[in-house]
Amino acid sequence: MNGATNNKVLTLDTLNPNVVKMEYAVRGPIVARAGEIEKELKEGVPKQFTKVVKANIGDCHATGQKPLTFLRQVLAMVTYPELLNSRDFPEDTKNRARRLLEGCRGGSIGSYSDSPGIAVIRQDIAQYISDRDGVPSASDDVYLCAGASAGIKSVLTMLLTGKGGTDKAGIMIPVPQYPLYSATLAEYDAYPIRYYLNEENHWSLDVSELKRSINEAKPNCRPKAIVIINPGNPTGQVLTRENIQSIIKFAKEEKLFILADEVYQHNIYADGSQFFSFKKVLKEMGDEYSSMELASFMSASKGFMGECGYRGGYSEIINLDPAVRLQYNKSISANLCPPVSGQAVIDCIVNPPKPGEPSYELFLKEKTKVLDLLLQKAKLVTKTFNSIEGIKCNEVQGAMYAFPQIFLPPRAIEEAKKQNKTPDSFYCFQLLEETGICTVPGSGFGEKEGTYHFRTTILPPIEELEAVLQKFKEFHIRFLQKYQ
Amino acid sequence: MNGATNNKVLTLDTLNPNVVKMEYAVRGPIVARAGEIEKELKEGVPKQFTKVVKANIGDCHATGQKPLTFLRQVLAMVTYPELLNSRDFPEDTKNRARRLLEGCRGGSIGSYSDSPGIAVIRQDIAQYISDRDGVPSASDDVYLCAGASAGIKSVLTMLLTGKGGTDKAGIMIPVPQYPLYSATLAEYDAYPIRYYLNEENHWSLDVSELKRSINEAKPNCRPKAIVIINPGNPTGQVLTRENIQSIIKFAKEEKLFILADEVYQHNIYADGSQFFSFKKVLKEMGDEYSSMELASFMSASKGFMGECGYRGGYSEIINLDPAVRLQYNKSISANLCPPVSGQAVIDCIVNPPKPGEPSYELFLKEKTKVLDLLLQKAKLVTKTFNSIEGIKCNEVQGAMYAFPQIFLPPRAIEEAKKQNKTPDSFYCFQLLEETGICTVPGSGFGEKEGTYHFRTTILPPIEELEAVLQKFKEFHIRFLQKYQ
Repeated sequence: MNGATNNKVLTLDTLNPNVVKMEYAVRGPIVARAGEIEKELKEGVPKQFTKVVKANIGDCHATGQKPLTFLRQVLAMVTYPELLNSRDFPEDTKNRARRLLEGCRGGSIGSYSDSPGIAVIRQDIAQYISDRDGVPSASDDVYLCAGASAGIKSVLTMLLTGKGGTDKAGIMIPVPQYPLYSATLAEYDAYPIRYYLNEENHWSLDVSELKRSINEAKPNCRPKAIVIINPGNPTGQVLTRENIQSIIKFAKEEKLFILADEVYQHNIYADGSQFFSFKKVLKEMGDEYSSMELASFMSASKGFMGECGYRGGYSEIINLDPAVRLQYNKSISANLCPPVSGQAVIDCIVNPPKPGEPSYELFLKEKTKVLDLLLQKAKLVTKTFNSIEGIKCNEVQGAMYAFPQIFLPPRAIEEAKKQNKTPDSFYCFQLLEETGICTVPGSGFGEKEGTYHFRTTILPPIEELEAVLQKFKEFHIRFLQKYQ
Repeated sequence: MNGATNNKVLTLDTLNPNVVKMEYAVRGPIVARAGEIEKELKEGVPKQFTKVVKANIGDCHATGQKPLTFLRQVLAMVTYPELLNSRDFPEDTKNRARRLLEGCRGGSIGSYSDSPGIAVIRQDIAQYISDRDGVPSASDDVYLCAGASAGIKSVLTMLLTGKGGTDKAGIMIPVPQYPLYSATLAEYDAYPIRYYLNEENHWSLDVSELKRSINEAKPNCRPKAIVIINPGNPTGQVLTRENIQSIIKFAKEEKLFILADEVYQHNIYADGSQFFSFKKVLKEMGDEYSSMELASFMSASKGFMGECGYRGGYSEIINLDPAVRLQYNKSISANLCPPVSGQAVIDCIVNPPKPGEPSYELFLKEKTKVLDLLLQKAKLVTKTFNSIEGIKCNEVQGAMYAFPQIFLPPRAIEEAKKQNKTPDSFYCFQLLEETGICTVPGSGFGEKEGTYHFRTTILPPIEELEAVLQKFKEFHIRFLQKYQ
């Protein structure tokens, strides 16, 4: 075996070191262990629980959310156009399906689309953005992508310098942050400039901290861009307009390309919180700012639709230098096109049924139900965590996650070190083994030295969620007793 | 305007130089011009033709091929499970749809799958490969991906060295080749080791040429892998078992990871040609070879299904070092999962209706019709090109393209140089402007210095194809007369 291994082209020593470096906690070792436990449960291995609760990933349908009828009816007809003759589908869904099929070459979603996406869908997205912001959007600025992740990666690719050492591209990313960013920067060998969100002030984004982080990084890289996640993942904060303005000013001063991850724009729960897109704020700040380069990202996977599996997403990229845009258009062409079925899903989201159309009532009912339940769950989760000794949780203002801080006894921290785990990883593994609840340790998202967190989604059905939180509470008390 | 441009973060000077370097001819400038011409035709601009014939890309449904009924029925039901109650779908399609939905979390294709794909689909693929090769395949070796392209890029990523200069990863690629490879190597800043296919001998792959190319490259890079496209794109050759054996021996001697692009495995036309997978040949060469690292790629986009838009594909990666496999599994996790609808498409292809099942007859009829027509078209195209003076075309043994050599008069070559175009690009642009036929210049795929080619698909409907070839012939004669 060892002899054979040594003959390999690829070993840990010869593998791309950037691949070795990258980590993606949302699907990391704890999730692998959760999968094993599921298998053990099926095989009848006795446990203190009967089911694994996957609170590690924002996977809406997996946790019981039902697909929107309107959306799936349109999708079924573009998939199998014979259904256009069925009497079981409302006329407005048929009209939309026909319109999408007309946008496809040969009238089939099995043909390639243009690399930036189907023209009519790009137009619908631009219309949606214009209506949302009260600021015009051009369909040429809109690019469909295979989930927001693919769009983010293709924009980050443009920003790389192609050089090493202190000439590497510096990309500012929040801490805590969604680990797609740290993973991609590791894969691309870019330099992450980590700025810390202010946990003491609802995970707000302080400009002084942006300045600190970029100034410290300047000797080590060439700062090129700033990533902002709003609403925040994993932190759940919703930025105010003023906060966004100050970030834009900072980006202007430092000559940074702005990447605004706005995939949770439909998920706003807190009283007084409101979603402002970076595009809207930037365009309304006047001539000095309105020509800044900005890419914003949206996804079919979150919001009220939760269609993760379709890998639908889009970016709006504004104010690119025309020569750069040509290069960008070229660079995405080798990937041929984003999944056409995912593009169709996006169209259903940005162009939903309108009042008076046959699908409107049901669509509104289904959408409202999902969002109302998420709001209730956001409040329940915040309240419950804050009722537990040794846990502090900022309000879940938006998105789909809570990121509570856990105050761990020194003996637990020592024990974790002995086991070569971060303290929060140690905690999350025990939580999983004892209760079946799968969360992600805060260290996977980044956190201030000496603080410990975990991320949990707020997605389990509300009736389950109460029981889950109760089980969690009991575990936490046991844990504290054990290591106090 | 210039002032604004100078304020940009991204200009041609600051853009990732690897992005600037990369080219992807299949969607290059000639295709952009074809799109403009389509617009002009719609606007009533008078032309010598009424329609653009897009022979630039293997986009089956766009050129009139109809989707397989079986496949789209299964897909419609997994999309909108209420259809499982419909009396209009055969029982075997329902069983398959139910089985796929059971493989999805929450019973919805809107949930994320595991990053390597849905377990039951991986098993079906492994079964398909085992049956095809008569050699066992393990589902853990199978990875679904967003079209073969995404799978190829993720394997190439592992092979990078993370270093520059003469430590760059050297990847052997054929010339001519499908430009995904040259584009990806440019983007990843890897070193392309170009080996030439032998046009004089049906585009065969000579080991002496492999040796020449790698020996010349060794001072400049660290050779890590060899890419083989079989059946060939754009060249249409089908490798013999003996040829494959000699390539495997070469790879063993040079300690190369093998990437076998086998997306056209169903597209074999020539008498006496047969598809042998690299996996089968390697496994049957005995112990010395059977533990070599090999990744082979397959796609939903080609074959008899032509479902390009779904971005379905898979790779089988065998004999990875276990530690490397863990790293690979980690590296694909940040991309979450391949499109689940595309995964379902793949399942329909690897697990088609069986004799006796209600969908079998129609499925077989539709599949046979597509493949029979492709065979007729392959023969027609080869024959017609070889009947034209100044054109020489190897037999289209497989895949979906012809790659004829065109012998251009010196005056045409001079004129091309004046216009700052390659001679074959100059030729293809004139062909497009005069006839509406859109092909891709050979220079986009690579060709021997001083030779000129173009790639055309064989996909247009057979009744159209004859007229297209006639128009082509007339153009070619005019072109020769003009520049003789």
